[in-house]
Amino acid sequence: MEVKYINPFLSATSNVLKTMAFIDLTPGKPSLKKDAVVIGDVSGIIGLTGEVHGSLSVTFTFSLIKEIMNNMLGETIDEITEDVKDAVGEMTNMICGDARRALQQEGLNLSAAIPTIISGKNHTIKHAVKGPIIVIPFKSGTGQVIIEVSLEG
Amino acid sequence: MEVKYINPFLSATSNVLKTMAFIDLTPGKPSLKKDAVVIGDVSGIIGLTGEVHGSLSVTFTFSLIKEIMNNMLGETIDEITEDVKDAVGEMTNMICGDARRALQQEGLNLSAAIPTIISGKNHTIKHAVKGPIIVIPFKSGTGQVIIEVSLEG
Repeated sequence: MEVKYINPFLSATSNVLKTMAFIDLTPGKPSLKKDAVVIGDVSGIIGLTGEVHGSLSVTFTFSLIKEIMNNMLGETIDEITEDVKDAVGEMTNMICGDARRALQQEGLNLSAAIPTIISGKNHTIKHAVKGPIIVIPFKSGTGQVIIEVSLEG
Repeated sequence: MEVKYINPFLSATSNVLKTMAFIDLTPGKPSLKKDAVVIGDVSGIIGLTGEVHGSLSVTFTFSLIKEIMNNMLGETIDEITEDVKDAVGEMTNMICGDARRALQQEGLNLSAAIPTIISGKNHTIKHAVKGPIIVIPFKSGTGQVIIEVSLEG
């Protein structure tokens, strides 16, 4: 897991949230952690294969996904609806695609699987890798989204 | 999503639980569903790429994972510990590997990503595919495990 792979995921997340939901995210300090566990209310997860294998998770707090749904679709939500899950799946796909294009320019070619969307208050996600995991937290005015990326040879 | 792809996942799940945890599962009726949503307490998810792209989820009720941990490691658990997550990741990898070997004999070559493990009471999982999803429920004396597989070209 190399540090130069952090930026593609950081930029992709900011770009997709800005473009899709008109939200300016403030990235926190990225870190490489072992045994990182992210907690949130709704997540998109997508598997990665190719020269290395891994997984990407994109985890939203309820307050941020509420703002996103309002901005994207003009919907006011009180719970995680099917529309929310579809939006999370779509954003996960777009963040993954944007990052993969940038990683390709770094010489790393990856294929993406199909996203799954997890819903459940305070669920946790653990990536089953032995090495460190990239963790990037972002804040908006209303809530947060956390990206975790695991890649191993 | 072809019906002939159901059996490799059904057999793999029975084999792995029998071999790893000495548990005889009774499979329920497999089905192909659109918009299937599985609910459980701890899940392993793994992405699939290759000639088709997809994802596999393996979702346990707490009562079944408790029996598994007791049989596998002699551990009595009262909550989802790190050991439980590691065991779920390992079983997901093994079920996926066993199914991929059988699918290869059917002429379908797939690569597997790295598993992620989801924990959270009554979390739900949705596979972001347009077509139907294979759903296979299994029961043991104490609880249940549900397999969901999405594959699309």
